[in-house]
Amino acid sequence: MEPIDAIDFEKAGGLITAITLDDATGDVLMVAYMNSESFRRTLEVGEVVYWSRSRKCLWHKGESSGFTQRVKSIQIDCDGDAVVIRVEQRGGAACHTGKRSCFYRRLEDGEWIDEGEQVFDPKEVYGS
Amino acid sequence: MEPIDAIDFEKAGGLITAITLDDATGDVLMVAYMNSESFRRTLEVGEVVYWSRSRKCLWHKGESSGFTQRVKSIQIDCDGDAVVIRVEQRGGAACHTGKRSCFYRRLEDGEWIDEGEQVFDPKEVYGS
Repeated sequence: MEPIDAIDFEKAGGLITAITLDDATGDVLMVAYMNSESFRRTLEVGEVVYWSRSRKCLWHKGESSGFTQRVKSIQIDCDGDAVVIRVEQRGGAACHTGKRSCFYRRLEDGEWIDEGEQVFDPKEVYGS
Repeated sequence: MEPIDAIDFEKAGGLITAITLDDATGDVLMVAYMNSESFRRTLEVGEVVYWSRSRKCLWHKGESSGFTQRVKSIQIDCDGDAVVIRVEQRGGAACHTGKRSCFYRRLEDGEWIDEGEQVFDPKEVYGS
């Protein structure tokens, strides 16, 4: 039995939820999705390859920015439709906004407060 | 503007992804989904109320088991379709299997290793 056989891709139309954590700090960096091919590719290359729901293609995170995510560990949940991936985040930022984590806003007294660390300027990295 | 206005429920058919962390340890306890009503109820009651995709109803986590999740903080991601909720997990376990976290299996040398902490016996808690 291969590791991928424990994963239930059918439950949500071919996709599982992938929660990515910074292995160094334990912070949640981002959440995205994987189909079976992206999970296989992730194991093969040792870097996280998601499935882009909007672009409908494999998404090797960091390919354009250089900010790839080196896999340190993968955990699967009880019903096999979600994984937690701990990574070494190259460049120190996972979010396209240049923040370290996509979860940079926290609810406080009824407002979303931006408390994220700005690691890079997206204009410099993505050129737009 | 209300906090809920920053959330994009439309992107995934009315649901957002909710990632729940143990506030004491930082561990990912579970991942589930919320619609707008469940997010509102969560803020009102101060405990996590998900939307059950299988039962198609509000799911006040721990109502039957007593293992409710008291909200400590809520973070939202860059595109507003996922939240990270840090909680105080009553009873010390989030998973219906009695494990502390739903993510109790980790990939090691091509196999999923069970390394989860068994907090309760599901037969005693759920009576079946």
